[in-house]
Amino acid sequence: MNIAIINGPNLNFLGIRESDIYGTATLEQLNDFITQNAPPSTKLTFFQSNHEGALIDFLQECHYNDCEAIVINPGALTHYSYALRDAISATNLPCIEVHLSNIHAREDFRKKSVTAAVCIAQICGLNAMGYILAIQALKDLKPWGPAPTPPPL
Amino acid sequence: MNIAIINGPNLNFLGIRESDIYGTATLEQLNDFITQNAPPSTKLTFFQSNHEGALIDFLQECHYNDCEAIVINPGALTHYSYALRDAISATNLPCIEVHLSNIHAREDFRKKSVTAAVCIAQICGLNAMGYILAIQALKDLKPWGPAPTPPPL
Amino acid sequence: MNIAIINGPNLNFLGIRESDIYGTATLEQLNDFITQNAPPSTKLTFFQSNHEGALIDFLQECHYNDCEAIVINPGALTHYSYALRDAISATNLPCIEVHLSNIHAREDFRKKSVTAAVCIAQICGLNAMGYILAIQALKDLKPWGPAPTPPPL
Amino acid sequence: MNIAIINGPNLNFLGIRESDIYGTATLEQLNDFITQNAPPSTKLTFFQSNHEGALIDFLQECHYNDCEAIVINPGALTHYSYALRDAISATNLPCIEVHLSNIHAREDFRKKSVTAAVCIAQICGLNAMGYILAIQALKDLKPWGPAPTPPPL
Amino acid sequence: MNIAIINGPNLNFLGIRESDIYGTATLEQLNDFITQNAPPSTKLTFFQSNHEGALIDFLQECHYNDCEAIVINPGALTHYSYALRDAISATNLPCIEVHLSNIHAREDFRKKSVTAAVCIAQICGLNAMGYILAIQALKDLKPWGPAPTPPPL
Amino acid sequence: MNIAIINGPNLNFLGIRESDIYGTATLEQLNDFITQNAPPSTKLTFFQSNHEGALIDFLQECHYNDCEAIVINPGALTHYSYALRDAISATNLPCIEVHLSNIHAREDFRKKSVTAAVCIAQICGLNAMGYILAIQALKDLKPWGPAPTPPPL
Amino acid sequence: MNIAIINGPNLNFLGIRESDIYGTATLEQLNDFITQNAPPSTKLTFFQSNHEGALIDFLQECHYNDCEAIVINPGALTHYSYALRDAISATNLPCIEVHLSNIHAREDFRKKSVTAAVCIAQICGLNAMGYILAIQALKDLKPWGPAPTPPPL
Amino acid sequence: MNIAIINGPNLNFLGIRESDIYGTATLEQLNDFITQNAPPSTKLTFFQSNHEGALIDFLQECHYNDCEAIVINPGALTHYSYALRDAISATNLPCIEVHLSNIHAREDFRKKSVTAAVCIAQICGLNAMGYILAIQALKDLKPWGPAPTPPPL
Amino acid sequence: MNIAIINGPNLNFLGIRESDIYGTATLEQLNDFITQNAPPSTKLTFFQSNHEGALIDFLQECHYNDCEAIVINPGALTHYSYALRDAISATNLPCIEVHLSNIHAREDFRKKSVTAAVCIAQICGLNAMGYILAIQALKDLKPWGPAPTPPPL
Amino acid sequence: MNIAIINGPNLNFLGIRESDIYGTATLEQLNDFITQNAPPSTKLTFFQSNHEGALIDFLQECHYNDCEAIVINPGALTHYSYALRDAISATNLPCIEVHLSNIHAREDFRKKSVTAAVCIAQICGLNAMGYILAIQALKDLKPWGPAPTPPPL
Amino acid sequence: MNIAIINGPNLNFLGIRESDIYGTATLEQLNDFITQNAPPSTKLTFFQSNHEGALIDFLQECHYNDCEAIVINPGALTHYSYALRDAISATNLPCIEVHLSNIHAREDFRKKSVTAAVCIAQICGLNAMGYILAIQALKDLKPWGPAPTPPPL
Amino acid sequence: MNIAIINGPNLNFLGIRESDIYGTATLEQLNDFITQNAPPSTKLTFFQSNHEGALIDFLQECHYNDCEAIVINPGALTHYSYALRDAISATNLPCIEVHLSNIHAREDFRKKSVTAAVCIAQICGLNAMGYILAIQALKDLKPWGPAPTPPPL
Repeated sequence: MNIAIINGPNLNFLGIRESDIYGTATLEQLNDFITQNAPPSTKLTFFQSNHEGALIDFLQECHYNDCEAIVINPGALTHYSYALRDAISATNLPCIEVHLSNIHAREDFRKKSVTAAVCIAQICGLNAMGYILAIQALKDLKPWGPAPTPPPL
Repeated sequence: MNIAIINGPNLNFLGIRESDIYGTATLEQLNDFITQNAPPSTKLTFFQSNHEGALIDFLQECHYNDCEAIVINPGALTHYSYALRDAISATNLPCIEVHLSNIHAREDFRKKSVTAAVCIAQICGLNAMGYILAIQALKDLKPWGPAPTPPPL
Repeated sequence: MNIAIINGPNLNFLGIRESDIYGTATLEQLNDFITQNAPPSTKLTFFQSNHEGALIDFLQECHYNDCEAIVINPGALTHYSYALRDAISATNLPCIEVHLSNIHAREDFRKKSVTAAVCIAQICGLNAMGYILAIQALKDLKPWGPAPTPPPL
Repeated sequence: MNIAIINGPNLNFLGIRESDIYGTATLEQLNDFITQNAPPSTKLTFFQSNHEGALIDFLQECHYNDCEAIVINPGALTHYSYALRDAISATNLPCIEVHLSNIHAREDFRKKSVTAAVCIAQICGLNAMGYILAIQALKDLKPWGPAPTPPPL
Repeated sequence: MNIAIINGPNLNFLGIRESDIYGTATLEQLNDFITQNAPPSTKLTFFQSNHEGALIDFLQECHYNDCEAIVINPGALTHYSYALRDAISATNLPCIEVHLSNIHAREDFRKKSVTAAVCIAQICGLNAMGYILAIQALKDLKPWGPAPTPPPL
Repeated sequence: MNIAIINGPNLNFLGIRESDIYGTATLEQLNDFITQNAPPSTKLTFFQSNHEGALIDFLQECHYNDCEAIVINPGALTHYSYALRDAISATNLPCIEVHLSNIHAREDFRKKSVTAAVCIAQICGLNAMGYILAIQALKDLKPWGPAPTPPPL
Repeated sequence: MNIAIINGPNLNFLGIRESDIYGTATLEQLNDFITQNAPPSTKLTFFQSNHEGALIDFLQECHYNDCEAIVINPGALTHYSYALRDAISATNLPCIEVHLSNIHAREDFRKKSVTAAVCIAQICGLNAMGYILAIQALKDLKPWGPAPTPPPL
Repeated sequence: MNIAIINGPNLNFLGIRESDIYGTATLEQLNDFITQNAPPSTKLTFFQSNHEGALIDFLQECHYNDCEAIVINPGALTHYSYALRDAISATNLPCIEVHLSNIHAREDFRKKSVTAAVCIAQICGLNAMGYILAIQALKDLKPWGPAPTPPPL
Repeated sequence: MNIAIINGPNLNFLGIRESDIYGTATLEQLNDFITQNAPPSTKLTFFQSNHEGALIDFLQECHYNDCEAIVINPGALTHYSYALRDAISATNLPCIEVHLSNIHAREDFRKKSVTAAVCIAQICGLNAMGYILAIQALKDLKPWGPAPTPPPL
Repeated sequence: MNIAIINGPNLNFLGIRESDIYGTATLEQLNDFITQNAPPSTKLTFFQSNHEGALIDFLQECHYNDCEAIVINPGALTHYSYALRDAISATNLPCIEVHLSNIHAREDFRKKSVTAAVCIAQICGLNAMGYILAIQALKDLKPWGPAPTPPPL
Repeated sequence: MNIAIINGPNLNFLGIRESDIYGTATLEQLNDFITQNAPPSTKLTFFQSNHEGALIDFLQECHYNDCEAIVINPGALTHYSYALRDAISATNLPCIEVHLSNIHAREDFRKKSVTAAVCIAQICGLNAMGYILAIQALKDLKPWGPAPTPPPL
Repeated sequence: MNIAIINGPNLNFLGIRESDIYGTATLEQLNDFITQNAPPSTKLTFFQSNHEGALIDFLQECHYNDCEAIVINPGALTHYSYALRDAISATNLPCIEVHLSNIHAREDFRKKSVTAAVCIAQICGLNAMGYILAIQALKDLKPWGPAPTPPPL
């Protein structure tokens, strides 16, 4: 299964910025960790950008190439980028939103996600493991039931 | 590792109620699925109640017995039960909030969680698999980093 | 027709509490009045509890036994119990919400009902007669038109 | 007992407009249904207008002629016409507000009634039967207790 | 000076409705009182309607005939009729808004006036005398200073 | 194609009122301009009223006679008349809302339209040309695609 | 009749400050104008302060000396001084609130008065004449009816 | 004097939970402290429950047995339980609300009490002493004045 | 122990103003009552002012002289005086906020305290006894636990 | 006349994404349709970007080159991009905002436009035709009146 | 250039109160620092008061004496004193608002300034240096451009 | 000291756009002015972009190169870019936010800054001089006190 792992603004600063919240590992180390722990027969493509537009461009490419599912951490764009929301929705691919920290235990503005409504699921607060679990969920979702279809909205 | 799996109001009605959202499997089948897919050396205790008070009572017991972590789906209490929030916080145990459906893609009132702020993480939209991933996360959290400590708030 | 008459918190205090609003008749007298004035061939089951959980338990039983319709006065739970809302919705039975007093002519918080949206109708301000009318409506609904189907929402 | 049955804007379009919500019967058929099902010794006067001012004029006449009670469905004026509210209040007659559909299960703006606070009761969601029950309530109110006096506010 | 005295919905019910707030004099008596107490060389034209549209029609006529100033009590339309606001503004005549009761000491919705912003002044709480003072103000405004020009907004 | 051109409160005051916003042409001149610039084989019916009720009456007639589409400028009723909204919706005809001025560049209350949601389109800020474009749109809509169907809501 | 004329913060700056709104006359000239135009047998006491506390002190003195009524322009304290509100209410004297400008046609924060609810009336937008009319109203109130009694609230 | 001391959800966890806020003494120790420091001739009955319904049941019993006054710490139910509010109001007994911590110096949601309006008083921030002072107040209230009568509301 | 008893605006009007709420005793009588009922070895200093500035001046003096604790009833300044809040906080002395009436059972604006967050406790609704209990609390606080330290915030 | 046709995020996905709302034609087909239907002697320049910054860059270029007017569909940036708003305003060119769908009949967040206030007009709900009409309006605006000048704000 | 340096409530407590936020220097030391670092040929007048009224009195004097510009730190009055706002506006002098701490990084209520809108500029977060920079700005403003004229509003 | 001077969207349009607010000097002239007036031994790096992403990229580079402090004018991104906020916070460098105009005297949306909370200070309304003062502040901050440390938040 081909899965795109997309990270938004400032996530390339992992391990540098606010290490009390996000730990000391870098984005490269995060990606390595994900690669090593992903289930077998998963092909991962990594993308990070600080540019809302570049993230939308990449999401649109996912629609055209052989990408089958998406794991996205939109960073702070989560809280206001309706353009990113439309782009996720437009891919017509199952998408899971991931946050490293528990966004419900931080500033008020971080509690609102404008993108989660067009994903099939949201995982927050589990650090690097959130990505692993999201990948696993996208692969194994079918055995138990058909519930998580992407909401058209 | 001893983990309590706690389900709130109406989750004993799984498979009966709103099967378009939650699927047709019952709570018993859900629990079986969880038991079968949980990582080895995990001891699970299941509890469900429609009573806010009974859920608080059970959470307090978790503090006293050998429970080491909690997975909770508070059902609709998620949206208003500050008493449940205080009870979760009082256990001083790592707790993950799980929702079967993607609460961000439903009615407005379901988007607000008053309990998530005192958990270490929240997983929603992954149906039964959400529970499995939460258990996995509680077990394997340490290898990668210390991020998810329960917020004292 | 088997109809459950369900009363929520403090309605067992009828005739004792705030008689200027609710009158001086007790819940027992209310139930007698309802029984005497219900249309023939109506089998009524009465239930009252101050416990949100017990009300949910009872509503779930309605789904399993031969109950065909519900009249419910959720008392003050009307204004915040999303758990009760989910339980009413889960019964898949036609349900009418009743309030003794006119909730629109009292404190602001009483004007908002979180449960009415999953009922087929709401009657308020008609004291004991509200229950009679609700029963009558549930029995005679069909002759004129199919409008009040329970909203799935 | 002389009772005025007053219908507000667009209710003369019953059976034509939004039949999925209101059914296919016309206002004339509704009035016939009400006449046939009203309790004996009830004299009904029917009035409908799309004009807020005409509704207020008619309500004022109710004060002068032998009208003893009012059943009113203010249509969409329910949600903003404080002038209609003042007119209802000024009649000093017992008045019951009726809505064909369950206003709590539709758009948000329909949940707020500015007129209900000056009525003695509100019935919604019971289609044509709502009018019958309202008439019945106005006639039989006394036997059980004095609760529903019109709030002066 | 030709001045129009305009009264909105339900003010023809003065002396009948809510006499605890508005006293027992009728609109006719109010008009007589105004006529008797108006300053000499004032020609008054009285108009009352329960119809928003008729009030707008009359205001437009004021623009064409020899009307020089307006005293208006819009009744409950004060609180929502932006159409009336536009009509007042369109007359380009000095207009004073009058309320019999002190709208700041009643229900919350009565505190907001959508029409006052396009008048030059507002007088409330002085019963019939409010009209007299408004007429006097319109006549004598000039001697002291040019302040109250109608805001174009 | 038979199209009704409906104007709400105060639009009969065009050219008189607030000429800095609306210009100096009268409603008659506006109608002439529309007639002269409408596409061939368009039959236009003009209607204006300051009465909400008369506008609703006229909209209902559109349902019965051979009217095929509607262009409406509801004036200030745009911002609060849910009754007009229901009437537009009830016609089941394609309707376009037009405003002479750009309502987004004026007072805050003018930014909210309660009627636009039941129209297929809204055009504002183009003065008399807005009506021409609306007529053109109603005639030529089909060639390019079926998008603008009236939302039932 | 003994009447106190009380002016709040910055009103001693009349004629100096914002003359486009308030004109060019000074507070002294305003007081002279009031004295000259007050009805015969009226004894006026003038007081102005920029200090909320001094205004409250003076209002309390009004309770003790032979003051029979109050005209107050609280300046910007109108919008937030609940302490002044309590002081006005505590005098148990009829009080009329006056504003030189039309507070409804200025910034949003000026539209809210926290003091008007404990006065019997409010007059705004009539410049110096507002004070004259208020005095007149306090003197002549009785002949027509008993409506304006000070709300105890 | 017979006084009921009622504690709500999680207060049986005192000394265990969040000792930085509530100290290290247990509920049992709290009760002992209260018993030892209560004024002579006071008979105290202690009750604690995590169940909203059980608290309501107990409050209703207070109405029937010889209880003369109530001290209640509703825990987190303070912030949303309108059912508890109705139960307190229904006892018709003088009731004082107590909180161990200063609820005004914590999270925003803790600042709102839905129950305080039907009590005669509220004491917060004084830890165990709050209960002693409440008991003392209930006993000695009369000597100084009749102010604190329970608001019927 | 040296304790300052500080009263804000209008409390010098006790016994005069709104005796239905505050009783008929004067501030002098209140102070006498407090002096007589205060625990032995308490030295009380009384201060009252209608001036926010004077209250702040006095609070600052408390920091310099031998004052050890403060009891303050800020009157209506409670609801908006952030300057008073800062002054209380700046004293670094334990302070208890007292209100004679139950502020939660009155107008909405009285429910919000901007000063309570920087006090250690709040007591309301107990009339003169509130002051006694506050003094007692300040003296006896230590025996049971260290909970109420003044929040720095 | 030189007119720039600017499309924002995701509009390059037309025909692919959400075809139930936007139809099946692509952006290329849309542009062809616009070119073919634009009035003679119109020179169109097309630009689309998913990057807010690129849209601002292009708008600034419009100021320098021979562009005379702008038609812009900002996509989801409509709802939050104040930077785009400033850029439109800075061009000092007449600009019309276009939306393919009726934004008033979709999610709440789509109803708010932060850019429309600095355009001269807004057209929504007319699919591809909206662009044609906007171009036509920009060309023919003058004949009838000078109303739509760009608001400087 | 004559510049008044005005400090509001509690700023005479600098160095004593909340030294973690404001440092340990006193107001006297602050004033010395300002005097020593002010540009040559600047004549400074210092004023501090805890009284809103005294600050307004002093601002009015600035209008009359040879004061040419104002630097003001209104303390907590910043957040609610519309009377101070009017006084600043009435001076017609260029005024800069200064705050020692970064008000945007503290409690929510400190983020709102009701006075800044009538100043030409605001500087916050630079401690004592904020005053120096403000003085410098007032002196050197002209060389670069005329932008900061005081908004009349 | 190495300081980065960063300008956001549309600031490259200075002197062109809205010269009534921002004056007629260009960004190049602004930068020259800053260079000429910066204190000696200051090395300035200038950066401007209309792209949120490019601004974030540049801020991250500041962390790596020898940049010691930042002056940023985020333009309209100030009001919604939480991504920029995170980027500023992540640099761990002292940062001062500058605005040319007084954002408190313009549209409401400009009053809210989502970035100021992670800066040490904000200066607005001083045109080009704001940058000079910010640079000066960053250089000279230490002599007087340690107050402005960047809030971690």
